Amino acid sequence: MIADLNAMLAKDFDIHFNNPDLLDEAFTQASYVNEHKEQHLKFYERIEFLGDAVLQLVVSEYIFLRYPKLPQGRLTRLRAAMVNEQSFSSFARECHFDQYIRLGKGEEKAHARQRDSLLCDIFESFVGALYLDQGKKAVERFCHIVIFPKLDQGVFADFFDHKTELQELAQHDGPVTIDYELLEEFGPENDRQFKVSVLVNGQELGVGIGSSKKNAEQKAAQQALTHYSD
Amino acid sequence: MIADLNAMLAKDFDIHFNNPDLLDEAFTQASYVNEHKEQHLKFYERIEFLGDAVLQLVVSEYIFLRYPKLPQGRLTRLRAAMVNEQSFSSFARECHFDQYIRLGKGEEKAHARQRDSLLCDIFESFVGALYLDQGKKAVERFCHIVIFPKLDQGVFADFFDHKTELQELAQHDGPVTIDYELLEEFGPENDRQFKVSVLVNGQELGVGIGSSKKNAEQKAAQQALTHYSD
Repeated sequence: MIADLNAMLAKDFDIHFNNPDLLDEAFTQASYVNEHKEQHLKFYERIEFLGDAVLQLVVSEYIFLRYPKLPQGRLTRLRAAMVNEQSFSSFARECHFDQYIRLGKGEEKAHARQRDSLLCDIFESFVGALYLDQGKKAVERFCHIVIFPKLDQGVFADFFDHKTELQELAQHDGPVTIDYELLEEFGPENDRQFKVSVLVNGQELGVGIGSSKKNAEQKAAQQALTHYSD
Repeated sequence: MIADLNAMLAKDFDIHFNNPDLLDEAFTQASYVNEHKEQHLKFYERIEFLGDAVLQLVVSEYIFLRYPKLPQGRLTRLRAAMVNEQSFSSFARECHFDQYIRLGKGEEKAHARQRDSLLCDIFESFVGALYLDQGKKAVERFCHIVIFPKLDQGVFADFFDHKTELQELAQHDGPVTIDYELLEEFGPENDRQFKVSVLVNGQELGVGIGSSKKNAEQKAAQQALTHYSD
């Protein structure tokens, strides 16, 4: 199984482990260790502890450098949108990590292999192993393939509160007034659409259409934000 | 003020910043920026965001490597004992960082300079600035002066639950019985002392004396733990 994992990592990510024992450890759950006591295996939890901190820093540093005007509060929220069980488990699936986990029979039966919490752990432990084997630069390269492009693809956009972000950015250099105006309501009763514009100090910076006023305002704010990005 | 800070860092820590603007930013609170708008200063919060993640990783990596047998739960608890407002604010005081913070007049009057939360922030923002200026190795050197020696000095010992740790370590390779036995009670009524031994599978691995049975048990467990360290 680890041989297959090595081949997959080489093929998909050009990653070649110096110490394959670290990979073994990163993909082995305690339940498997308990069923193979004679092999004295290690399970992933310690490496996951390290990988969690590595991902936290690599993601923090990336968004810190990429969004030089984003205030701390927004950075914290963006990081929380990127670093969580839901996103990490989906990255793990995307990397096909689920196929390589060594589980005990009971856990296998209980469908642990598809559990978000386990997949999130394995994503972190893989990163911990990569860090121990090849250092932070290698983890950054991996994140540039698996995590960072998703910022541009809008994967984390649902987590954003664009209205708050707009307010914070617009007010960065002093007080401003931000108004949302309902321009239009249209469509049938059961599929009503709202068109809203956002005005910053009276100037229209964005327009959004959505199934609720709130939704349309978020979209208008998202458009307005492009005026403040570098 | 920043010139003095530079001199102190050079003298006490052999740290020489390439980009002193980062130090300015790290030691400037928003209240000061607001009172000096014409100077277009930056305040510490973004750098603190980064420094927080840097410290999390550097501490995690250190304890991960130093305690190769400590299970994840214990690593997490130890990190929490090291990485928190109380310890960071005391490190900041120890480094005399409080003297170099640029505060607004209102904050100064409100004694913000001695507030744990601010000192903790400044400790993190200093580390963020050091990381941006000189990379992770420089932060590690700083932590080897300011944080890590305190592990041996027992500064974080109050946060430890040695009995739990002993149980986890001793049971790592299978079930064991752990018993605490009161050996002796002595001293005057108002300063009673208790002497307790801890037996792992019947073998005495530690003895502790304390002002309560609980306290003595913790000390006995702490001594027994040395049998499990490398």
